[in-house]
Amino acid sequence: MSTNPGMIDPVLAQIDATLPAALDRLMDLLRIPSISTDPAYKQDCARAADWLVEDLRTLGFEAQAHATPGHPMVVAQGGEGGPHLLFYGHYDVQPVDPLALWDRPPFDPEVQDTPKGKVIRARGASDDKGQLMTFLEALRAWKAVHGTLPCRLTIFLEGEEESGSPSLIPFLKAHGDLLKADIAMICDTGLFQDTAPAIVTMLRGLLGEEIIVEAATKDLHSGMFGGLARNPIHVLTRILANLHDDQGRVQVPGFYDGVTELPEEIRAQWQNLAFDHAKFLGDVGLAIPAGESDRTPLEMIWSRPTAEVNGITGGYAGDGFKTVLPAEARAKVSFRLVGAQDPHILRDSFRAWVTAQIPADCRVRFADHGASPAGTMQITHPAFEAARSALGEEWGRAASYVGCGGSIPIAGYFKTYLGMDAMLLGFGRDDDQIHSPNEKYDLECFHKGIRSWARLLGKLA
Amino acid sequence: MSTNPGMIDPVLAQIDATLPAALDRLMDLLRIPSISTDPAYKQDCARAADWLVEDLRTLGFEAQAHATPGHPMVVAQGGEGGPHLLFYGHYDVQPVDPLALWDRPPFDPEVQDTPKGKVIRARGASDDKGQLMTFLEALRAWKAVHGTLPCRLTIFLEGEEESGSPSLIPFLKAHGDLLKADIAMICDTGLFQDTAPAIVTMLRGLLGEEIIVEAATKDLHSGMFGGLARNPIHVLTRILANLHDDQGRVQVPGFYDGVTELPEEIRAQWQNLAFDHAKFLGDVGLAIPAGESDRTPLEMIWSRPTAEVNGITGGYAGDGFKTVLPAEARAKVSFRLVGAQDPHILRDSFRAWVTAQIPADCRVRFADHGASPAGTMQITHPAFEAARSALGEEWGRAASYVGCGGSIPIAGYFKTYLGMDAMLLGFGRDDDQIHSPNEKYDLECFHKGIRSWARLLGKLA
Repeated sequence: MSTNPGMIDPVLAQIDATLPAALDRLMDLLRIPSISTDPAYKQDCARAADWLVEDLRTLGFEAQAHATPGHPMVVAQGGEGGPHLLFYGHYDVQPVDPLALWDRPPFDPEVQDTPKGKVIRARGASDDKGQLMTFLEALRAWKAVHGTLPCRLTIFLEGEEESGSPSLIPFLKAHGDLLKADIAMICDTGLFQDTAPAIVTMLRGLLGEEIIVEAATKDLHSGMFGGLARNPIHVLTRILANLHDDQGRVQVPGFYDGVTELPEEIRAQWQNLAFDHAKFLGDVGLAIPAGESDRTPLEMIWSRPTAEVNGITGGYAGDGFKTVLPAEARAKVSFRLVGAQDPHILRDSFRAWVTAQIPADCRVRFADHGASPAGTMQITHPAFEAARSALGEEWGRAASYVGCGGSIPIAGYFKTYLGMDAMLLGFGRDDDQIHSPNEKYDLECFHKGIRSWARLLGKLA
Repeated sequence: MSTNPGMIDPVLAQIDATLPAALDRLMDLLRIPSISTDPAYKQDCARAADWLVEDLRTLGFEAQAHATPGHPMVVAQGGEGGPHLLFYGHYDVQPVDPLALWDRPPFDPEVQDTPKGKVIRARGASDDKGQLMTFLEALRAWKAVHGTLPCRLTIFLEGEEESGSPSLIPFLKAHGDLLKADIAMICDTGLFQDTAPAIVTMLRGLLGEEIIVEAATKDLHSGMFGGLARNPIHVLTRILANLHDDQGRVQVPGFYDGVTELPEEIRAQWQNLAFDHAKFLGDVGLAIPAGESDRTPLEMIWSRPTAEVNGITGGYAGDGFKTVLPAEARAKVSFRLVGAQDPHILRDSFRAWVTAQIPADCRVRFADHGASPAGTMQITHPAFEAARSALGEEWGRAASYVGCGGSIPIAGYFKTYLGMDAMLLGFGRDDDQIHSPNEKYDLECFHKGIRSWARLLGKLA
């Protein structure tokens, strides 16, 4: 798909010339600690939503923060002419603990020089504030050059993506008329192996569960009761140790129901990607694939389901030592789902499997931390080929259709509740440390991300 | 052993008449949050030591708080005439978490009416501030009546008992001349089944270890890396799940070396105690002995060695959910030791056993949280029979020689480093919730504890 150079070149020049101002705006947004999972930051989430509403209004949008039982949804309408595009991002961020491992305060962003180039360092720099601002900055440059937005646009920015999106489905159901467009563009993914642009067409689902094992009615002295009373940490660790067999397969009954093998053409395409798992693991100090022993590393992260314990706590874990038998122990477990695995059936199966391992004298409770199935994108809309072309021009390499280990349920929800296909593309890098201390977004990714969107809008407008 | 009623009756009357003032003093001491394991409370530990020095001086002792690399040791000398008794207690207390489970602030003590009588509610009320004050109050009453202390006395109050006593052995070695007496009396134990006075002659040892399993160099996103990268929580839970076999036996190689069977006469005596394990467990909401399947409940807590995980942490355990693969996971493990089990050999054996289970790509570190062997008391000193007699008169029931599941290494240290036998007796009850939220000490135990010591001093003086 070709572009009129007279239409796009001045926009790219405007982006280059105004990058410092774009960066300043991102810094402002990064200063707001919009951690959605922790109720202590509720007002900060509202502040981030309001900040975006104000910014969208300066671009000529009619914008509003819609209240929900959780955090607000920002929705904005603007522009004219086809196609009608919906852009989705999220303004909430992950918690920052362990805080001690951050080199600077996570909500005091800074541009830093590193051996690999300049980076924007802050919680949310990559996931997802930096990414969502690439689109808004592309629109700002477009408007500065052409006086209008490039086409009819709906902007939809969520504030609960990092906490299971509890308000999302009710909001989609209630506001479908506000949100339905020709296609959705979701900016919450990354480049392939740091340099190749990529469009995600295969997403894993996610099931989040918390196990709470209770034994005695109170914490006990391990000297008085140890060896006689049931220790809930022992019960919990024995259950979790059974989660995988020695080949790395998940042992919950029925877990692999609905899991399909890769189509041959996708398997061939992935082999061509020449995924360098030694580098991927080496960047985080590891060397050896630890998943199912009969699968390739790319399958492990893109097309195979997983079970991971994301958190465990019980007893005394502070400085020093406390000889306590705790009354309870807890673990948070997530499952990444693929194919037709049904998260609701799996939740029941997991709970039954855990419950069957609880000894007499103990009780178990569960907390539901969300469930979304896997998704496979339709790529028939012409925006997909336009995006491959635009990304190829900006990055100097063809864009690939890839899988994604993370779970971005919004794509499936757009299809289910609004009948709308979605295209996932973004500019994160594997070493962005999203969800970890010292999260960053490369300045190059921010800059070329803005330029990528401008190119794509030039092709679609 | 008989007592001169003219000598002891006025002391008992004085104790009864001045109980409210004794209680006020205990309340003052309980208000000091002397948590020894947490460095944040270092000044409070020093304050508690100073408070005791001041109080001992009002009783006519030459008292001093001796600085150590950790918390101070309070040592006081006073009185004349034989025998020379050393009294040991500890002024430090356990941490208070989980704070949310306390019904009132743990360092704001209060006397409360309960269905089972009046209780003193505060951290340290029973373990060990309330207990150590029973002895000082007995001396105060004695002095008020007779004008002098009953015999030559050394008071030795430690501030690191709840954090592994790191300064104790060096202090005993350096100050043996200050501390050596005819016999030590240690007040840090309880009544048997709430009503029968007891003298502990069999103590379990304690080995404290912390395991830190490290995998990636930073926390990872479980979507990006899950299924491929090693999860240290999985590694740790698999190791801990192997700690016991299905019969409750500890699987660390050589663990049972040095464990001896109970002598027949002790076994017979314990059978006569008619330990009601259903009530003991029922009081904390449990019903079923969970230890070695071929042992009696009393053996499980008094004469068999154990392994217990006292704390575990890894990943995100706060509100909500975080899809993280943590860089590390940690557990604190304690072993209760009996007979001739060697804690230093066991530490090496445990570390080797853990290390052998660490997969490639992971590392393990250990932290040492103390080691003390089990101890069996010599009961030849006439103070033992005097104590059985005094306790029997006060409580209306014969005192028993019993075991103790907890670890009170000081008794062994007195023997090893000062060549001095020790007698352990105290007035705690099983439901005192020591080391747990809502710790209490029954007012009856405090009152009759003071009277018990007065009676014993009357026999020994």
